Amino acid sequence: MKELKICVIGAGSTYSPELIDGFFNRQDKMKVKEFALMDIRMDRLKIVGGLIERMCQHYDNPPKVIMTDDLKTAVEGADYVVTQFRVGLLPARAKDERIGLRHGYIGQETTGPGGFAKALRTIPVILEIAEMMKKYAPGAKLINFTNPSGIITEAVARYTDVPVVGLCNCPITAFMRTKKHMGWENDDVFFDYFGLNHLAFIKGLYLNGKDVTDEAFEKILDHPNCDEMLGYAFNKRQALAMRVLPVSYLQYYFHQKELYEKISSQEKTRGESLIEVDKQLLKDYSDPNLTTKPAGLSLRGGAWYSEAAVSLINSMETNDGAIHFVCVPNHGCIQGLDDMAVVEVPAVVKGDCLRTLNVGKMPAAIDGLVKHVKAYESLTVKAGAERSADDALLALISHPFIRSVNDAEAILDDIIREHAEYIHLH
Amino acid sequence: MKELKICVIGAGSTYSPELIDGFFNRQDKMKVKEFALMDIRMDRLKIVGGLIERMCQHYDNPPKVIMTDDLKTAVEGADYVVTQFRVGLLPARAKDERIGLRHGYIGQETTGPGGFAKALRTIPVILEIAEMMKKYAPGAKLINFTNPSGIITEAVARYTDVPVVGLCNCPITAFMRTKKHMGWENDDVFFDYFGLNHLAFIKGLYLNGKDVTDEAFEKILDHPNCDEMLGYAFNKRQALAMRVLPVSYLQYYFHQKELYEKISSQEKTRGESLIEVDKQLLKDYSDPNLTTKPAGLSLRGGAWYSEAAVSLINSMETNDGAIHFVCVPNHGCIQGLDDMAVVEVPAVVKGDCLRTLNVGKMPAAIDGLVKHVKAYESLTVKAGAERSADDALLALISHPFIRSVNDAEAILDDIIREHAEYIHLH
Amino acid sequence: MKELKICVIGAGSTYSPELIDGFFNRQDKMKVKEFALMDIRMDRLKIVGGLIERMCQHYDNPPKVIMTDDLKTAVEGADYVVTQFRVGLLPARAKDERIGLRHGYIGQETTGPGGFAKALRTIPVILEIAEMMKKYAPGAKLINFTNPSGIITEAVARYTDVPVVGLCNCPITAFMRTKKHMGWENDDVFFDYFGLNHLAFIKGLYLNGKDVTDEAFEKILDHPNCDEMLGYAFNKRQALAMRVLPVSYLQYYFHQKELYEKISSQEKTRGESLIEVDKQLLKDYSDPNLTTKPAGLSLRGGAWYSEAAVSLINSMETNDGAIHFVCVPNHGCIQGLDDMAVVEVPAVVKGDCLRTLNVGKMPAAIDGLVKHVKAYESLTVKAGAERSADDALLALISHPFIRSVNDAEAILDDIIREHAEYIHLH
Amino acid sequence: MKELKICVIGAGSTYSPELIDGFFNRQDKMKVKEFALMDIRMDRLKIVGGLIERMCQHYDNPPKVIMTDDLKTAVEGADYVVTQFRVGLLPARAKDERIGLRHGYIGQETTGPGGFAKALRTIPVILEIAEMMKKYAPGAKLINFTNPSGIITEAVARYTDVPVVGLCNCPITAFMRTKKHMGWENDDVFFDYFGLNHLAFIKGLYLNGKDVTDEAFEKILDHPNCDEMLGYAFNKRQALAMRVLPVSYLQYYFHQKELYEKISSQEKTRGESLIEVDKQLLKDYSDPNLTTKPAGLSLRGGAWYSEAAVSLINSMETNDGAIHFVCVPNHGCIQGLDDMAVVEVPAVVKGDCLRTLNVGKMPAAIDGLVKHVKAYESLTVKAGAERSADDALLALISHPFIRSVNDAEAILDDIIREHAEYIHLH
Repeated sequence: MKELKICVIGAGSTYSPELIDGFFNRQDKMKVKEFALMDIRMDRLKIVGGLIERMCQHYDNPPKVIMTDDLKTAVEGADYVVTQFRVGLLPARAKDERIGLRHGYIGQETTGPGGFAKALRTIPVILEIAEMMKKYAPGAKLINFTNPSGIITEAVARYTDVPVVGLCNCPITAFMRTKKHMGWENDDVFFDYFGLNHLAFIKGLYLNGKDVTDEAFEKILDHPNCDEMLGYAFNKRQALAMRVLPVSYLQYYFHQKELYEKISSQEKTRGESLIEVDKQLLKDYSDPNLTTKPAGLSLRGGAWYSEAAVSLINSMETNDGAIHFVCVPNHGCIQGLDDMAVVEVPAVVKGDCLRTLNVGKMPAAIDGLVKHVKAYESLTVKAGAERSADDALLALISHPFIRSVNDAEAILDDIIREHAEYIHLH
Repeated sequence: MKELKICVIGAGSTYSPELIDGFFNRQDKMKVKEFALMDIRMDRLKIVGGLIERMCQHYDNPPKVIMTDDLKTAVEGADYVVTQFRVGLLPARAKDERIGLRHGYIGQETTGPGGFAKALRTIPVILEIAEMMKKYAPGAKLINFTNPSGIITEAVARYTDVPVVGLCNCPITAFMRTKKHMGWENDDVFFDYFGLNHLAFIKGLYLNGKDVTDEAFEKILDHPNCDEMLGYAFNKRQALAMRVLPVSYLQYYFHQKELYEKISSQEKTRGESLIEVDKQLLKDYSDPNLTTKPAGLSLRGGAWYSEAAVSLINSMETNDGAIHFVCVPNHGCIQGLDDMAVVEVPAVVKGDCLRTLNVGKMPAAIDGLVKHVKAYESLTVKAGAERSADDALLALISHPFIRSVNDAEAILDDIIREHAEYIHLH
Repeated sequence: MKELKICVIGAGSTYSPELIDGFFNRQDKMKVKEFALMDIRMDRLKIVGGLIERMCQHYDNPPKVIMTDDLKTAVEGADYVVTQFRVGLLPARAKDERIGLRHGYIGQETTGPGGFAKALRTIPVILEIAEMMKKYAPGAKLINFTNPSGIITEAVARYTDVPVVGLCNCPITAFMRTKKHMGWENDDVFFDYFGLNHLAFIKGLYLNGKDVTDEAFEKILDHPNCDEMLGYAFNKRQALAMRVLPVSYLQYYFHQKELYEKISSQEKTRGESLIEVDKQLLKDYSDPNLTTKPAGLSLRGGAWYSEAAVSLINSMETNDGAIHFVCVPNHGCIQGLDDMAVVEVPAVVKGDCLRTLNVGKMPAAIDGLVKHVKAYESLTVKAGAERSADDALLALISHPFIRSVNDAEAILDDIIREHAEYIHLH
Repeated sequence: MKELKICVIGAGSTYSPELIDGFFNRQDKMKVKEFALMDIRMDRLKIVGGLIERMCQHYDNPPKVIMTDDLKTAVEGADYVVTQFRVGLLPARAKDERIGLRHGYIGQETTGPGGFAKALRTIPVILEIAEMMKKYAPGAKLINFTNPSGIITEAVARYTDVPVVGLCNCPITAFMRTKKHMGWENDDVFFDYFGLNHLAFIKGLYLNGKDVTDEAFEKILDHPNCDEMLGYAFNKRQALAMRVLPVSYLQYYFHQKELYEKISSQEKTRGESLIEVDKQLLKDYSDPNLTTKPAGLSLRGGAWYSEAAVSLINSMETNDGAIHFVCVPNHGCIQGLDDMAVVEVPAVVKGDCLRTLNVGKMPAAIDGLVKHVKAYESLTVKAGAERSADDALLALISHPFIRSVNDAEAILDDIIREHAEYIHLH
């Protein structure tokens, strides 16, 4: 069994203990020799990393834990680099959300103007990380969690040749919740899922191998917990007519108006609310008596985040041939999208071999929306990687939310001004 | 020279005299033996047809003019069937516009909910006309002007095998106005134009064969009459960055917010305003002393409408090889759209041979929008032709304007109720 | 556990005992209640079916065995219909081979003129079987082994809506032999295989998850048993430059000249030789003391044929998620081929859910050949299903072997004349 | 009217006087200020250039004629560079033809092994010319006649950004001869023609605008001069079933066997025969009393060569909007071929604006062959431009003629050895 060096970028995140816990639970399958925790905020890293060090003492053969704010030190010799950093942390996120709202648009971390701003901040950093990996950890795989995960992954895939897989806890969360509410906890359920990151659909449901798509769709849409399973109580008539179930972030497209009204009427944005939660968690983590993952963390959904990453690495290391839901370049998997467009689809992973399951043509009812959003995403990748203000404007105009070029210009101006520290376009 | 029977469906339109005038001006090239004027509103037809009869007396060898409300009589033996009917006339248009506005969307004849309603009213009728042509005028060509022209043409192309070309006066109007304001009236200007009907772009400009795209784009966008040339004073930075000029109806997409504010603040919708104009024109036409096209008509832009149709028929009859801007099935002309998706592109017309000029890939900055709108259009064609309420809902949800599935349901309900006479979905 | 009715069409084949043996070995996973053995040659069926009846006595709970020459009786209520019939039996095959040779072309059962003739004989029959399944066994799955498997499967997929999967023992045979000669018998090897049936390539090799493509290709090509592994000692320089390994039937394309010389110099064709073998086997089967699969059968490679079919049915019944190499419609799996073109690719099978692994673009070095052969195949499907002599001629001309339209006409004439009993074109 | 510098590369060709004559006949439309005649064989150039100088004296205002073996001198400041050079002249062609025949393949200048060898010799030279144009004649257009014209044009299009149009006299020759034999000399005939260079088809025929495709195809195929019109007496049943007429070089594909027999039985190859003709022509040209194009030249078909080039340049200079049959990158014009694959299709030329007429899907009966040959061509372009021996081998194997990889290796070895002066692969 190979001994792995796992590098975590943005390790100061309060999610990090989940990740370490995931590896801990798979000690029999994978041996970690070193966790290299990197964060430019050493104050946070010391707290989170401290907890991780204490957690690692429970291993029979504890991995080395290093904490650093130096990218090269962190990356050098790594087998996997897991990225979960957030440029500008929660205050930047709160700004993103406020800029959208100020101009009459949904203020959201990954969708619409907020996700666009986050992408512009993040792309130069991820490309720098990839560059460093190429030099100091050739062959290492980049597992990206940093949002907007599809866009960030596409930037790496288009502008570097570092092997990259984007992940998101949306698919696994939807599946786990659906299994729970449908009473399928002990069943083998295959969710035939496809789309873009944060713009995905379930097109088939197989319960212990039996195709139950039609009856299950109807039951899910009628279920009192439909909103928890799919992330929103989507319109039944629409979903049955499309014969695909929209998941989670589709609410921002199909119910933009209602969501805007809801979000704009709240006192605090999601980012602003989380600042408090984050502070409390860091305080909890500082307790030297805490030596395991805090119970509350898994309640926040973080468990699935860790599960997605660690089980993927497990398939890469142990060749178990499991199916994962990953963000990777399309290469014909979904017809009508570019080869390099990153899509979110199921893939069989057998060690070095990651092969997506072919999707074919999209249903007509969603084909236009998906292509429109992907055009926005690919333009954003270009704008971010080439630091082009004109492409940034075109990207934003290409977002289906935007109702005026004038709004796009004003939003872009705000983004550039408020994030002047991170975004440098010409 | 073949003697032609020209059938005009919706001949009670006040535009009809333009069309007849166009043929009159080309007597040396085409010989019309009969104008078959058809309208279900015989009251209107008698007035407009009466003027046409008087106009025809100026011919050396006057064509026969027949007026009928019977489709078979009109179509039988025709060489060309020109469709310019409007199901429900201006009052139906006014309803379309009001329905959109009532739910917070642009109320417009062809774009958004208004065009959608018009398509649902029109598709069954155009398919009936095509059916009749197949039986009673095999080989005749259908020249469609009825709006939304791209959608109506696509319905004929997908659901029948009648030869059909859709036309619109948008391209020719933009070209003529641009030539005038740019001082190119005596020049040979090729506008390299492509897109969908009412969603088109100029991607190149050739002045007497010289590629002047870059300088001309800049001059047009800076010109005080830019709005008249392109139909709107589009954003210069956007247009130069895209390196295509948006034309006319793109204003509803790129400036949806401003246009909604403008339209919703007007006392009358465009349709409501035109009811008065229409009445006055009919009154003018009734004057037995009027024997030529009224001068005022050409001021309304109708001249280009006639020019588009008559010059196209001229190329079909005389093999002059002129380039026309037509709505026809794509068949690979614009990459990334379906073979049967109707697009608006330049085509060389040499008699029976109509060949589009290949467009290739669309610029990334508009690719998503065009595909999104085309998805809406093709779903609308399906909903209209198959009279499916579910497909109608999906079509409307697929329109990039729509911000909520709930809005789409409410709008569709209104459309079905208010146009119960014309729209029957199941 | 569902109790299955397995229908075998062409059950008089001497391969049938292999199939029954395969089910026998999986009694713990699948319960067969009935084997319906159908053949129009009752004389053969009684011999082979007799052996099968005796074999079935070894079951704890013996399945019912019925023998019939009536298609409806055989198919009615079946869960799976396995087709392995050969229209005209070995004498027809021998004719196919002779017709090719007579005109200077490779005489081969599935490739070139021979496979073309076989397809024309077989397509009407398979379509009749599918028709019968639709009526009397709705939902049943057709597992096709009848050659040319890709073409026959495409006929069913294009002209019916019966669920169909084509199988061939080529991939599994190549994999098993390669594992043996490479000493990988205890390893998990993933052969990343794709192409058309009898025109396929290995594009990657993963040994226990590790990508060993480059080193393994070199070793295989240098290996003294390369010919047994790949079916032919392919040219090393070519294979390494293409970076895909050709498999088996590619010899007829890449070494057409040498193979023609070899085949045309043999006294008997393969079909003629097998007539003797077949007679002997039937004689062996007639022995009432024989109650198990004869040992010699598995030596002929038949084991893998059974393994392919039974393990596929196992994945369909037990949801084990195994990867199978199947012939199914493309739907974008291999870029540049039609949606309905049947390709041979890996697929994950989880009960009702069969999902191909996406292949993407083909390497340039084989792209032209594969598209050329697929054009021939799809034209053959059309010719066979629509019984069109003109399409048959065009299909044959489209085969890359054919060096003269005159040859194609002469070959087609011979085929129609010599197989007048089976082939009726107009 | 702009004064043009026309540069001719390979001006020592005996065809050159035709070209000059073409310009002479269009003096009223285009003003040539200089013919820059370039050839590395100054001995030939002096003879041919001498005649051209004498021809130019007939101009009212004679253009300057310069003769040089220096590429920079020739190209500098040119408006058009016409390439008609032949690397190694006729002796190299004769070798190409002999190599093919020696290994049992058609020995032909542009098709099969002969064309492949010629491409390998030519690509490095054309890329050098393009390089020189970029430096010393920015904006100049390259009009390529050097064979194999499609491959050479594709090399320029893929590896440089010099504007290039490939030409061939095949289409115009087929059209002119068909018009003559069909009695259409005074008619406007549109030949709807498409394909690859030397692999093209007529898919429609419009006589004075009327679609006469079906009747005309039948008449042409039945005509005693069918062979002269199409270049070969193609099989009528095949052509009608395909509903496209093969032209000229298709004979080598559809009647490979017969043509091989014919060519291999001739004492001299075409190249060997032409050596004599060429000598005689040079002798004729040397006559100082000869001051006009020799009458015999146009009989050899050269007239159409000149007509193709000069009328194309005329459309580029005068914006006449004529339709030309050109070799240009595909960009979706023919569905299913790469964007950069050079195809031979009709294009409207209006000055700087060259727009191909969209072709759409190819008929199934030729789709495979065209894609196979294009795969060969694009691999040849890569092999030639990147000087790769492995790609050269793969290219040759990809040619549908080749029946054995061993043959391909032997042929490539011969080509490299016999053309060692010109071909340097690694």
